[in-house]
Amino acid sequence: MSNINELLSWRYAAKKLDASQAVAADDLEYILESIRLSASSSGLQPYQVLVITDPAVKAQIQPVAWGQGQVVDCSHLLVFAAWDNYTEDRINMMFDLVNQQRGFENAGWEAYRQKLLGYYPKRSSEENFQHAARQAYIGLGSALLAAAELKIDSTPMEGFEPEKVDAILGLAELGLRSVLLLPLGYRAAEGDWLVNLKKVRRSTEDFVIRR
Amino acid sequence: MSNINELLSWRYAAKKLDASQAVAADDLEYILESIRLSASSSGLQPYQVLVITDPAVKAQIQPVAWGQGQVVDCSHLLVFAAWDNYTEDRINMMFDLVNQQRGFENAGWEAYRQKLLGYYPKRSSEENFQHAARQAYIGLGSALLAAAELKIDSTPMEGFEPEKVDAILGLAELGLRSVLLLPLGYRAAEGDWLVNLKKVRRSTEDFVIRR
Repeated sequence: MSNINELLSWRYAAKKLDASQAVAADDLEYILESIRLSASSSGLQPYQVLVITDPAVKAQIQPVAWGQGQVVDCSHLLVFAAWDNYTEDRINMMFDLVNQQRGFENAGWEAYRQKLLGYYPKRSSEENFQHAARQAYIGLGSALLAAAELKIDSTPMEGFEPEKVDAILGLAELGLRSVLLLPLGYRAAEGDWLVNLKKVRRSTEDFVIRR
Repeated sequence: MSNINELLSWRYAAKKLDASQAVAADDLEYILESIRLSASSSGLQPYQVLVITDPAVKAQIQPVAWGQGQVVDCSHLLVFAAWDNYTEDRINMMFDLVNQQRGFENAGWEAYRQKLLGYYPKRSSEENFQHAARQAYIGLGSALLAAAELKIDSTPMEGFEPEKVDAILGLAELGLRSVLLLPLGYRAAEGDWLVNLKKVRRSTEDFVIRR
């Protein structure tokens, strides 16, 4: 494969996807695995990923996502949905899973559990949701690279009405709130105004401050 | 290099870094480039990365970062600092740069500029900062992978007092607020309780919802 910076240079937010080309099942699982393996704060993985393939559901989402065509032209629409709150149950679930998988309890780890239990559930659900939402963006960073490695195009999107997407997908009942959409597919180059334009970033001198 | 999921499996949040080993200059630039090339909402890149090498500055930050040793044992401490607000000047700066780099103006792009100018500056600075902060997490996702590709260890950290880090680094004067620390270096395996423990993630069945 190419190196990370070549993959980042290759990728762009595809503006038009070819509805006739589907991402292969193995490739989809590879991208999902990159999200699942991603870092998150305290390892809580405070979000889930929905994979939408039902054309009727994609068609419902498109009008509440600024009408963007990639939502229906993609073969798989990923929805990153963050926990609406950090609860004791959720924190304990993850710490218990760690103990179970590692096969032992550790005093330092249990002290850290108590620290989080004494801190997160007291905060407002909005503050906790905002924190959880940030973690999903780390997973997005991985997914964009995993897709690029497979030469799969994608379009990270914040341009949608979260409450309406939540309602369509029944996310409130799951204790989740949508934060990102990521259609996956293959670029339809002839209909994509962005495909041949230069990727523009601030210069390293402007972006990096050295002390 | 390895593939993305191998890199994600290799990396972990190093708990002890070897203070005698420094990241090479070229490797540092490679990691910074991965952040610079990362996706961000509307391409605004609403954050900067500080590279701290001055031992005196690292020593000032450690006590306001829960005393974590990696802050001083790393050779380079990256600080991701998000824009404290979206202003007209900042939005115009990025849209002007795009036009300058691409060598032309585009009606659709100019309409999008006006849309953002009519939307972001009216929101509260806190809402805009929260949005900008999320974008830094995409860059973090890239940086963790770029470091892993080079077999460089890193420890993503939210465990610090942002206002105090801001004061130490004079970020308010730059219109920035710290959101993430990322010490870079090489693991000191003998002092790291986490290095040999299994990486634990929820199963794909628990993490992914299919519709």
